[in-house]
Amino acid sequence: MEQPRGNETTQRPADLASIREAHDRIRPHIHRTPVITCRALDDIVAHAASVGAEAGSFRHDRARLFFKCENLQKAGAFKSRGACNAVFSLEAAEAERGVVTHSSGNHAAALARAAALRGIPAYIVMPSNAPAVKVAAVKHYGGRITFCEPTLAARESTAESVLRETGGTMIHPYNDERIIAGQGTAAVEFLEDVPELDVIMTPVGGGGLLAGTAIAAKSLKPEITVVAGEPQLADDAFRSLQAGEIIPVGPQDACGPTHPSGVGPTTTIADGLKTSLGDKTFAVIRRLVDAIVLASEAGIARGLELTLTRMKTVIEPSSAVPLAAILENPAPFAGKRVGIVLSGGNLDLTQLPRMLEHKEDEG
Amino acid sequence: MEQPRGNETTQRPADLASIREAHDRIRPHIHRTPVITCRALDDIVAHAASVGAEAGSFRHDRARLFFKCENLQKAGAFKSRGACNAVFSLEAAEAERGVVTHSSGNHAAALARAAALRGIPAYIVMPSNAPAVKVAAVKHYGGRITFCEPTLAARESTAESVLRETGGTMIHPYNDERIIAGQGTAAVEFLEDVPELDVIMTPVGGGGLLAGTAIAAKSLKPEITVVAGEPQLADDAFRSLQAGEIIPVGPQDACGPTHPSGVGPTTTIADGLKTSLGDKTFAVIRRLVDAIVLASEAGIARGLELTLTRMKTVIEPSSAVPLAAILENPAPFAGKRVGIVLSGGNLDLTQLPRMLEHKEDEG
Repeated sequence: MEQPRGNETTQRPADLASIREAHDRIRPHIHRTPVITCRALDDIVAHAASVGAEAGSFRHDRARLFFKCENLQKAGAFKSRGACNAVFSLEAAEAERGVVTHSSGNHAAALARAAALRGIPAYIVMPSNAPAVKVAAVKHYGGRITFCEPTLAARESTAESVLRETGGTMIHPYNDERIIAGQGTAAVEFLEDVPELDVIMTPVGGGGLLAGTAIAAKSLKPEITVVAGEPQLADDAFRSLQAGEIIPVGPQDACGPTHPSGVGPTTTIADGLKTSLGDKTFAVIRRLVDAIVLASEAGIARGLELTLTRMKTVIEPSSAVPLAAILENPAPFAGKRVGIVLSGGNLDLTQLPRMLEHKEDEG
Repeated sequence: MEQPRGNETTQRPADLASIREAHDRIRPHIHRTPVITCRALDDIVAHAASVGAEAGSFRHDRARLFFKCENLQKAGAFKSRGACNAVFSLEAAEAERGVVTHSSGNHAAALARAAALRGIPAYIVMPSNAPAVKVAAVKHYGGRITFCEPTLAARESTAESVLRETGGTMIHPYNDERIIAGQGTAAVEFLEDVPELDVIMTPVGGGGLLAGTAIAAKSLKPEITVVAGEPQLADDAFRSLQAGEIIPVGPQDACGPTHPSGVGPTTTIADGLKTSLGDKTFAVIRRLVDAIVLASEAGIARGLELTLTRMKTVIEPSSAVPLAAILENPAPFAGKRVGIVLSGGNLDLTQLPRMLEHKEDEG
């Protein structure tokens, strides 16, 4: 499991106060994203609930879904919130040496963008097989890329040498209190706009968004239920909560971890969620998250398709996991007002047919 | 070319007053759709303008684009506006015999929905090879489908016999003053929300949306410029304006018309725009529309991809034609505030890879 580097020993645990400070700090640099609803999706969830109900127990209480559009966030994902908070909270002397991370996903682009806004360098370690679109996004924002072999060991050792050479600050994608506080600002906006939410949901990968959301939501509204959606094929957070300790997703490499069922490397289409929890995110999740609900690949593909075709909204597959979890387990959501954070919109259109095949293969 | 049937002799030409009456009539049954903007798209248009400019004439005046989201309209397209206006303006005795149309597109679903809302039957004549998703949409709203051979002659004769059997009222998809007035309500909302528009754009197929938009916009703001985007491969409206008379797209069949260039049946991916103008829509367009700008297939594919990936908004390919026309002809739009009606969102995801191939083939 990856561990954070840099100034983690001095980090104050994220709380509502640090989330509010983060919000003030990042407000000029991020969008306040809209919240949308979709009657057609509510109808589909109600239908799933009625099919799942036992005879004689048909539920008249429909769930009502609210979607926070972080797919419309700067750089296309909530990651801009945490990255901006981390970059803009650095001391001037620290900042000018730049920031460092290893990531092949949305955090890399968001950190490069945040660094460019502050006028400091961002050194991004990426695996040599990173998708061209991800590389292009980092370059678009002026990130300085160092490629490495596509193994965790190579990524870590390369990042170590970049840190030594530059004297920069490591900004971990999720296991960092500044990142957690930044991601929590989405939930603050969500509850300002829809204070009547009964449930708030996010996907869970490394847990930064989930931890920040849980801190903000439980602080602002203690009676709210905080739920994560997680792919069955990358269910490490689900198993970690059960075990009471972090269970990593498995031996990580560029192809993803091996699943304990023995079916080989994890092939979830929710490619943003193939990461293990960190100690900082796990501590928060264990304390504040009420449930993690799993979703099948067929369900994730269906959630993705429904979001595109019914809500006319482009999301990446990771963002479809909460909706998929609800559709496959509708009973506990009946009658609730459920807020879902659409975490990102960086969908690779060339991969869409492959993703939607899962719906037919397994559905 | 198709001609309207039913009570066309009694129809009063659409004007601002009839558009306002239509708006009051349909307001309970339609969405007031939002207007969105996208800085990334504005940047891309500015780049296209700078590339196209002659040396020394670099334009500092950026175009600013505003998008009216009729893709989020009920039944997924602006067609719900005209269909609701037509259905709810019928006299009671007339209405109870039902409404009839022949269409394989968004008008069929919108008319079926409008009729269901009024509690009257909708008889829809569809070609036997209509896409399954379109058939399902009509059935979803309770439309009564009569299938016919996929030729214009068969569609017309089948619709005639349905009209005789039912005594229903023909509601033509576009060449009908009630439909034109209903479609014009989108422009009223657009100018209420963004009164500073310099240009308003729609795609043009049969011309119902364009005619309604032109009447509303020129009545409310005489100095506004009204522009249509049209596929080069279905450029009948462009040629009709040049000729001063209606030039049909060509011998129509289910595969689309033959293009005068001799390249065979029209294969534009903007499948909603393969229709000829009608006499009612042409009269308005000739009087009020300032320009029709053509777009290549590569441009339409690029506009579709940019809307999906940058604006995170799902549209059907016909809705990408105005953006494509701007990207391929940016000069006249420099410095303007340009409103674009995103006409519909019924994208067939299974066809998306085929559509986007045009970008690479020809771009």
